[in-house]
Amino acid sequence: MYTLYYGKGAASLAVHAALKEVGVPYELVEVDLDAGQQRSPEYLRLNPRGKIPTLIIDGKPFHESAALMLMLADRHPHSNLAPPAGSLARAEWYELAVTLANDLGNNFRLWFYPSDLGASDEDLAFRSAIQLRIESMWAMLDARLADNGPYLLGETFSGVDLMLAMYMRWSRNMPRPATAWPALQKYADMMRARPSWRHITETEALTGW
Amino acid sequence: MYTLYYGKGAASLAVHAALKEVGVPYELVEVDLDAGQQRSPEYLRLNPRGKIPTLIIDGKPFHESAALMLMLADRHPHSNLAPPAGSLARAEWYELAVTLANDLGNNFRLWFYPSDLGASDEDLAFRSAIQLRIESMWAMLDARLADNGPYLLGETFSGVDLMLAMYMRWSRNMPRPATAWPALQKYADMMRARPSWRHITETEALTGW
Ligand SMILES: N[C@@H](CCC(=O)N[C@@H](CS)C(=O)NCC(=O)O)C(=O)O
Ligand SMILES: N[C@@H](CCC(=O)N[C@@H](CS)C(=O)NCC(=O)O)C(=O)O
Repeated sequence: MYTLYYGKGAASLAVHAALKEVGVPYELVEVDLDAGQQRSPEYLRLNPRGKIPTLIIDGKPFHESAALMLMLADRHPHSNLAPPAGSLARAEWYELAVTLANDLGNNFRLWFYPSDLGASDEDLAFRSAIQLRIESMWAMLDARLADNGPYLLGETFSGVDLMLAMYMRWSRNMPRPATAWPALQKYADMMRARPSWRHITETEALTGW
Repeated sequence: MYTLYYGKGAASLAVHAALKEVGVPYELVEVDLDAGQQRSPEYLRLNPRGKIPTLIIDGKPFHESAALMLMLADRHPHSNLAPPAGSLARAEWYELAVTLANDLGNNFRLWFYPSDLGASDEDLAFRSAIQLRIESMWAMLDARLADNGPYLLGETFSGVDLMLAMYMRWSRNMPRPATAWPALQKYADMMRARPSWRHITETEALTGW
């Protein structure tokens, strides 16, 4: 039913964990980003933009990690990925998914690929502007979780927690990683202890969380 | 039931049109962006990030235009905003909503607010990198609509068309506006003729489409 094209620790990570949470069968195909397999003719047929992840649903390829999370929640309404359709909690969940994708996803993309905007790794003004934007998100999320945790929606786990854990992990080699914020450190410990997270860590053979 | 805080022609535009399409009652409150009303203490209570739009749903404020579109589709499952929950067309709709928000929304934000990343209007390398990214989206969308129009989902109108029309309108003063692409020009004519679009154009007193 589902096939996930993933890269080790890439934007596919949250989708990988979401599939595991839902508990449906799925196949995994690794795309070696370092070897440039995302630009192979075979892969470009599945995703002309050459990015990871791609999720095949009923034979059709779909993209964008945040959109894939929305799709899985939509197709599995009784899973724990999202609050019930039509509820105010679901509205909050949509806002979180879009905000994380916009304000963490896009800024991480520029952090890792400054050439997208014609900048380079050595462009310090650019790099520190992005760093600041990412850190301001950590500050905001840290305050939110301290006030009203332990999950983004409060008492209840949902798929946006997998997105946040993924983005937090990406900050681990930054000057100030997400775990420098105390409520986010606690949150990281909690998320890393989740069976789905442990499973993907093993399957993708990730190190350094 | 709904109150929309909007700015003339701002990211609220697609949400404004979506409310009209759904046909539910709503109230409008204009926020004068030129006068900086988005940073007034009253508005910051509704949106601490000081951005437009905010949509009040059952007394609670929500943000991010793409998320608000998802919420309205979710709360009005029989409206024309999105294909049925659980369908493959709905999956495609999610991908379109996220892609437009990521690859047009975020790049337009940087086009209009280069200072977000420490750049200025005079930073030509930065400006032209963003311009190129926006234009590559027009090329991609033009090909898509030429192949499989007249709407983003093919035969059927949906809320992502309101998002695209909004972003296209924002390009009208760029060196190469979206309407320089022939299928997008046809699409603009079609969308501008829609009753909901005519209504918001009048209500917000927009000129130059
Ligand atoms: N907005 C996309 C971003 C996808 C993305 O940039 N993926 C990276 C890996 S994390 C990638 O494919 N990089 C390889 C490349 O661009 O060549 C998403 O969330 O799915
Ligand atoms: N990603 C947000 C972007 C919101 C945004 O940047 N809105 C602009 C108007 S189009 C704004 O509020 N500008 C005023 C400001 O930043 O001071 C969305 O789509 O809702």
